[in-house]
Amino acid sequence: MSRLIAAGDVEDLARGCALLGAGGGGDTSVGRLMMLQAIGDFGPVTLVGVDELDPDALVMPCGMVGAPTVATEKFESGDEGARLRQEVERLRGEPVACLMPAEIGGSNGLLPFVWAARLSLPVLDADGMGRAFPEIPQVAMHLAGISPSPAVMTDERGNVAVFRACSGAWLERLERATAVEFGGSAASTEYCMTAGEARRAAIHGSVTRALGIGKLRLGGEGNLVDELVIRAGGFILLFGKVADVERRTSGGFVRGSVVVEGTGSDAGRLLRLELQNENLVAFEGGELRACVPDLISVVDVETGDAISTERLRYGQRVAVLGLPCDPLWRTEGGLGLVGPRAFGYDLDYQPIEELVDADR
Amino acid sequence: MSRLIAAGDVEDLARGCALLGAGGGGDTSVGRLMMLQAIGDFGPVTLVGVDELDPDALVMPCGMVGAPTVATEKFESGDEGARLRQEVERLRGEPVACLMPAEIGGSNGLLPFVWAARLSLPVLDADGMGRAFPEIPQVAMHLAGISPSPAVMTDERGNVAVFRACSGAWLERLERATAVEFGGSAASTEYCMTAGEARRAAIHGSVTRALGIGKLRLGGEGNLVDELVIRAGGFILLFGKVADVERRTSGGFVRGSVVVEGTGSDAGRLLRLELQNENLVAFEGGELRACVPDLISVVDVETGDAISTERLRYGQRVAVLGLPCDPLWRTEGGLGLVGPRAFGYDLDYQPIEELVDADR
Repeated sequence: MSRLIAAGDVEDLARGCALLGAGGGGDTSVGRLMMLQAIGDFGPVTLVGVDELDPDALVMPCGMVGAPTVATEKFESGDEGARLRQEVERLRGEPVACLMPAEIGGSNGLLPFVWAARLSLPVLDADGMGRAFPEIPQVAMHLAGISPSPAVMTDERGNVAVFRACSGAWLERLERATAVEFGGSAASTEYCMTAGEARRAAIHGSVTRALGIGKLRLGGEGNLVDELVIRAGGFILLFGKVADVERRTSGGFVRGSVVVEGTGSDAGRLLRLELQNENLVAFEGGELRACVPDLISVVDVETGDAISTERLRYGQRVAVLGLPCDPLWRTEGGLGLVGPRAFGYDLDYQPIEELVDADR
Repeated sequence: MSRLIAAGDVEDLARGCALLGAGGGGDTSVGRLMMLQAIGDFGPVTLVGVDELDPDALVMPCGMVGAPTVATEKFESGDEGARLRQEVERLRGEPVACLMPAEIGGSNGLLPFVWAARLSLPVLDADGMGRAFPEIPQVAMHLAGISPSPAVMTDERGNVAVFRACSGAWLERLERATAVEFGGSAASTEYCMTAGEARRAAIHGSVTRALGIGKLRLGGEGNLVDELVIRAGGFILLFGKVADVERRTSGGFVRGSVVVEGTGSDAGRLLRLELQNENLVAFEGGELRACVPDLISVVDVETGDAISTERLRYGQRVAVLGLPCDPLWRTEGGLGLVGPRAFGYDLDYQPIEELVDADR
């Protein structure tokens, strides 16, 4: 059942996407301004379920690729979505019927709405990750055997690049190098598919989920985080203060680590997060507390707003949350693509709920 | 008037292309083996003049982009030309009628024959430079206003990249980054055009010229170099010995410098060449002796074979030759694209014949 996403939904969507971004997907502050502007100029966007689309209708997943640190300063021109669509239509010889966030996390959950408003296209209530992941082939469509090619990239200057890569890993290399050349970030589309394919290949209800999470507003201090955790179905790993941030932008990624020092009843504890665009793992005293593909999100204890990895800084008072990922990622294929080993960690995946239970 | 390029022509063409490469365009040793193999397997290649083609026929300039040091070790699969042609035909919606060397220098003068033999296509007796230059937009077609886009790149694995860049400089950046990602070199095509456009936009007779230069064989010692210089219409800058080579491969280019110490009647003189894939400038005691776009080629005094920049090494007994470039490059537009300042040298272009006269 389709519904309209209007200006009044932008704040909720942005807050939900920020939490589901697990620190990544790009800071939502610029994205929410762009979305408000686009809806103001072109009207609200229709959100559709996959069953409302003709099975042959072409779905275009899209978003930004690159380092979020860059994307907060290097703005789009606004025409990127139109160029992606034009190139996809030229290559496929058929019209794009609707857009879809490649990832629901961070500003990448908002950008498809910016472009959809400008193009008068609907957005599919789905995404490729149910969160944000750093690398391009880390999407449900990849597991479902959808081809990422032809992938299209563009920048704010009007450059267009098309890739037909011989593997997902090669696509990642080629797009990342091009994003770096574009200045560190770029707009892109991969894994275009029919609505029929999207039915089995995408993660559904993502936009609705983000809206639901984002609806929560500040009630009483502390309670807000509890509410968030209940609403998102997750766990609180630690209440504390950011004690150390080490972060660098290289090779089209943000990498680094963050130390959160426990406060209040968590005083004396130290949680260390390691990140590559997203928060990947959480360790405490050498013990694993949470790891990809489960979501690790850092939220401001006073506002409940999730803080993206590039905005973390010394002294912030935060809660570190752990949320279970989509069940797809806990399969053998899913863990092969986005489990700890896919990021170079020599450790087996353990579900967040088991790690939290063991801790009690 | 078309003629056939057969196995017996390969050696001549390779020698001529090596000299016209001004040190660049890729070492010809692998190229000549590939060309012999392709002609052996698929038969000789037809060389055509532009007047023999229908004015609407599509001409595909092609070659390798990247660092020659890499290309001597990273071989092609042989299918690159077919993939370039297939992608160009898909993008343009019309058949490729003939290939053309993007540059007549080095192995890039031979590769189009390798691909043409395999594809049963003719090769146009023309090129984009009349020599070799390091950067992609440094071609006559660029001056003539032909669009470089859509440019297509491919590698030996089967990856394909298509670029529609907003300028020649952006195309250079994007292709160079992709070539680096492919391992340092890649096959590519840019500035596809009709034969009618090629008539005014390309440099004609390049293949015939290379064959003529390459025909010269060892007569008496010393005389050979004199003959070469007469045949190519150039000058001998110095007879000597390679005394020092500083060379590095970075960012998809070979860069560095070479010192040649005079011997015999040139004893006591020192010539310093600076290079970026090609030999760019020659200095002696701080004085300019030759510079781009004129050709600076280093030849082995015993065989008369030109030595590419990546093959130069201490102790080689060489003659350094200077050859005037195509008149196109001496125009204001030409010098803007390929003059000394285009390579970062703060000096005005001086024609080789004037520099040699001043030296006498």
